[in-house]
Formats: sequence, C-alpha cells, structure tokens
Amino acid sequence: MTIPNKRIAVLSPVAWRTPPRQYGAWETVASNLTEGLVAHGWDVTLFASRDSVTRAHLHAVVDRGYEEDSAVDPKVAEYLHISEVFEHAAEFDLIHSHYDFMALTYTRLVQTPVLTTIHGFSSSKIMPVYQKYRDGYFVSISDSDRAAGLNYLATVYNGIDLSLYPLQEFSGDDLVFLGRIHPDKGIHLAIEVARQSGLPLLIAGIIQDERYFREQVKPHLDNLKIRYVGPVDVPGKNELFARARALLHLNTIPERFGLVLAEANAAGVPVIAMDLGSCREVISDGQTGFLVNSVTEAVRALGRIPEINRHACRARVQQHFSIDAMVDGYERVYSTIFDLEAKRRS
Amino acid sequence: MTIPNKRIAVLSPVAWRTPPRQYGAWETVASNLTEGLVAHGWDVTLFASRDSVTRAHLHAVVDRGYEEDSAVDPKVAEYLHISEVFEHAAEFDLIHSHYDFMALTYTRLVQTPVLTTIHGFSSSKIMPVYQKYRDGYFVSISDSDRAAGLNYLATVYNGIDLSLYPLQEFSGDDLVFLGRIHPDKGIHLAIEVARQSGLPLLIAGIIQDERYFREQVKPHLDNLKIRYVGPVDVPGKNELFARARALLHLNTIPERFGLVLAEANAAGVPVIAMDLGSCREVISDGQTGFLVNSVTEAVRALGRIPEINRHACRARVQQHFSIDAMVDGYERVYSTIFDLEAKRRS
Repeated sequence: MTIPNKRIAVLSPVAWRTPPRQYGAWETVASNLTEGLVAHGWDVTLFASRDSVTRAHLHAVVDRGYEEDSAVDPKVAEYLHISEVFEHAAEFDLIHSHYDFMALTYTRLVQTPVLTTIHGFSSSKIMPVYQKYRDGYFVSISDSDRAAGLNYLATVYNGIDLSLYPLQEFSGDDLVFLGRIHPDKGIHLAIEVARQSGLPLLIAGIIQDERYFREQVKPHLDNLKIRYVGPVDVPGKNELFARARALLHLNTIPERFGLVLAEANAAGVPVIAMDLGSCREVISDGQTGFLVNSVTEAVRALGRIPEINRHACRARVQQHFSIDAMVDGYERVYSTIFDLEAKRRS
Repeated sequence: MTIPNKRIAVLSPVAWRTPPRQYGAWETVASNLTEGLVAHGWDVTLFASRDSVTRAHLHAVVDRGYEEDSAVDPKVAEYLHISEVFEHAAEFDLIHSHYDFMALTYTRLVQTPVLTTIHGFSSSKIMPVYQKYRDGYFVSISDSDRAAGLNYLATVYNGIDLSLYPLQEFSGDDLVFLGRIHPDKGIHLAIEVARQSGLPLLIAGIIQDERYFREQVKPHLDNLKIRYVGPVDVPGKNELFARARALLHLNTIPERFGLVLAEANAAGVPVIAMDLGSCREVISDGQTGFLVNSVTEAVRALGRIPEINRHACRARVQQHFSIDAMVDGYERVYSTIFDLEAKRRS
C-alpha cells in the first residue's frame, strides 16, 4: 500500500526495555512493529523506556523498565508513561496502544483515535474496563484469544524478526522447553514427556513462580537428562534451537499467541504443542509440528518428528508470523480506522 | 460568602466506602467536606463507591471499596473510578480530587480546573508525578506536610463532625492509643509510657503491619494493664474517649494531619503527641495537650494532664478543625480558583 502521510504513536509497556533484553513478549512485539513500520516508511514515535532502542522517534518519561530498576514504582511509571502519550495525542493521527486496560481509560479524553492490541486478558477482574470501552478499536493476536462484545477490527498475528533465528539445517537430539517457569506453561508435563521418551530435556526461561519451580521442576533436575539453564537471550535461544529435536510447549491454559512457537519454527525446529488456545493457529498440525491433548500423545508425536520438513516450518513463519506479515496486517487495520474516522467527521 | 452557582465534583478514594465504616481517613475527609458543602448550598456530585452515603449526587462505577470486596481488583477500580470523573469533566466547574497522584495524570486532558488536596506523600517514588504537575492547584492538610515547588493555594485543616464526638465531661483513668497498628504510629512507645507510668493502656485500630503487631505489641498484652481491643467504629471511639485520661500519639515520623487528635480533643480528651509534623498545628501545647520529644517527656506530661481544660479542647476543635471551618477554608480556595480561571480565560 502507499504509506499515507500519517503520524503514528506506538505505546509500548515499560515493564522492560523495548525491545527487551530477555523476557518481555509485549515489548518484543511493540518493537518489531515499530521497526517494521519505520522500514515501510511510516512516521512513528515510540513511547517506551528511555533506554529503548529504535529507529523511530523515541519519547520517554521513564528511564528504565520498572522490572529492571527497583528505584521505579511500577504504578508511578505506568501512570506517567501512559498519560504522556495522551497529553501528546494532538500530534498524532493514531495512537496504537500495547498497554493493556489502563490506557483505555484515557481514550475518551482525546480526539485522536486509539487502536488497542490486546496481548492477553490477565484476569477476569480487568474485563469491566474492556466492556466499558468495547466500542473502541481492538486487534486480537489470535482468533482464539477474543472476548465477547469488543469491537475487533482484525486478528493480526505477532511477527518475529526471522533474521534473529537462522534456520538450523539439522535436527538436534534434545527436547527443549523455552518460556516462563510457571504452571500455565506445563513444564511438569514436558518433564513427564522426557521421562517417558527417555530423551534429554533442556529447560530455559525466567522463574516466574518460585514455588512451582521448587516443587515441580527442581526435584527432577539431574544435570544430565533434565537440565535447567536459566533465562536466555537471542543467542542462547539459537543454541537451544541447534540442539533441539523438538520444542515442547505443553501449556495448561489456552495460549494467547505463543511467540516461542514461531521462533522455534523459524529455526526449523518442530513444535509439539498442547491443542489449547492459539496453538492450532500458530502450528500447522503435521506440517510444522504436532498438536496434542496429553503427555501420551506428545510422546507418540515424538516418533513422527522426522516427518516434519524444517524448511516448511520456516516458510510458514515467513508467510504468517514475520514482521512484514504483521506490518501488512496492521497497515490494513490503520487504513480501516482512517476511513472510519474520515466518515465519522464528514 | 454567597454560594456561586457552580457545580463541584468531589473525587473520593474507593479503598473504602465514603464515609468509611471504620478506618479510612481520606474517605472521612472527602465525606465531611461533601456534606458540609451541601449544607452550605453547593451543587456537589460525589464520585465514590456505590454503597457510599451522601446528601450530594452520588456518581459511582465501583460497587464497593476494594479493601472491602475481594472481587474488585484495586488497580481496575482506581483506573475506572478516576477516569470517570474526568470523562464527565465538562459537567463541572471544578473537580476537587482527594485521589493522590493518579488523578493528576488526567488533569491536562480536560478544561475543567482541578484542585488536589494532598492527604499525604506515601513514598518518595511518587514525587515525580507531583513535580510534573506542580503548576496545578494544591491544598495541604497542614503547613508541615508540604513538598517544595508545588503550587499550594492554602493549607486547609481536615474537619471532623463534632456531633459524632460529644464532650466527655469527666476524665477517665486509662491511656488510649487509637490508630493504625504500624511502627509509624509508635504503639511500642505508648506501651513504654504505660509501663513507666503504671497506667493502663487501651490500644485500638486496624492491624496494618502484622509483623510489628506480633513482635512489638502482642508480647506486651496482658488483658489487664495493656489491652488490644481491635478496630473501632464511632461508638467504639466514644467508649474509649469516655475511659481516657489522655490519648497517646507518639508517632515516629512526621504526622500529616492527625484526625484522631482532633477527635479526642473534641471529646475533651487531652492529647500527648510527639512533636513531629503537624502535631504542633493540631495540638496547642499546654492548652489541649502536650507536645513531647521522648517517652520520658510523655511520662512527665501525664502529671500535668489535670492542667488541661476539657472544654477548651473542644472549643479549639470547633474553631479550627470542624467541618464548618474546613468548608469555609475550601470555599476561599474555590473562590480563588474561579477568579484565576476567569482571568486566564479573559
């Protein structure tokens, strides 16, 4: 499409730097979108922490992510950061918020249209805010992660930077889990798959639930067959992908999107994922991995891993989950909003 | 003064009902002010929890205070409640916020002037918000509780409803502590005064710091000389005042205002208070109590309690810390703001 002469504000969270150094899915997506829009010629201002890295204009009032700086009060950082973009609303043709329900409460106080990408509903307790502002503009990150009654304009899948995850031509031997150490992510199920299959398992990610790690993960670590390697950055992920026979993603609650599934596939690594939430949108069953409903099915699927074409995995990510695909998707949404707003004003 | 034909929005917190059932100083003051303004003939809309009790118009989006209803997420309640008054800003000539730093972040998005009563700075981490919005309109609740650089229009002391606290003509025998069980409030010092003086001590209030209670209060309770009676409502407070020889308020950090000092004085009860923060503004040393700097001085002051005239205690509260005095003070501030705004617009 022809890029219109429009000014876009992208509101990223300030839990972490944009892009994050390690963990931080929302900031990752906000960053990928921002850089993708800039590459496509848009005039973009990124509202993010001051240490963020971007080719867009950076507008910052919080020095560092509150998860990375104990001097910052999260509540103070959020109120200052979110209100800032709305105080500058008149300078933009569109505010694209990645900041959860909080930003919605400012939207009726400005003239500029606001698009909210809902990266996930953290709790049923936040739904009253979405219900109040349901007539706003919303994008879901998967068809499965939608709440009833909201004015969704589209689903736009998250896009990853494929250049960060080169294709690993050859399969490794290990099973890999990569994600937050939290019961939602089913690390205990991955461990069970490793035990039943006899294959080694590498576990990587930040420990978000200490008790879960202590009680359900740590007792199984043996420094040999089942190992925890801590949080990893991008090079660390690629090392894991190089050693991976398959990524195990046996989530216990519906996945909202699952960036790591796309990252693994980009590297050519097949994914065995629980068939919950968005997994069946990200993984093509039998083509880029297998959707399963139990540990038993996951173990069985391991026997079919050789059927997966590693190049086909990467090709599918390129087509559906690349930055370009995401930017294309959002450009269509922006265009819809500009048309709707023009009609509203005329 | 003649009440102008102006519409006032009073924004109360939603931690508790307005007025609170027991604890809740900010909600108490917001309630007293609202009812006082209505009594003076103002057109007032109170933004508070839906179960609030008022003669003003009540505007509510949160059913119950989040401290009283585990179904409510405090963050969700605050964002929904605060933004609501700003979404209705055009219906008011003045928004009077009692809602801390959060409400400030909406003030630049509306035309209606906003007055903020600062009920206390909970942490140095919130100061960046006050500094950003320092040109707003502020009222301090004591001369001592002021931050540098803010545009204060006045100090307006908190006002209490004297009808709730009838004069107790005769002194009781006990020492009384009334307030949050928290190290800031120096309950451990009150206990020390009781031990050194040999007088019985009644301790009342919500336990805000469990560990402090467990380690520094509970071991001294003997059900005889030193007793903890739990949180108390207004009748409970009056029972305590009836039994009180003096109220002990040996705060360890500067007091911001100290509603309970005025309540005790209203009932004719002399107050022995640590000379920190606002205590010397609320208590007239030698007339309505004694200001001290140590446990030793507090014990000594107990010997001088008979010098205090109980009627003089109540008279001073009537003059300076009554609802009428507070409403008079705010009417002067409102008048100043309306004048300033008229000049700004002309």
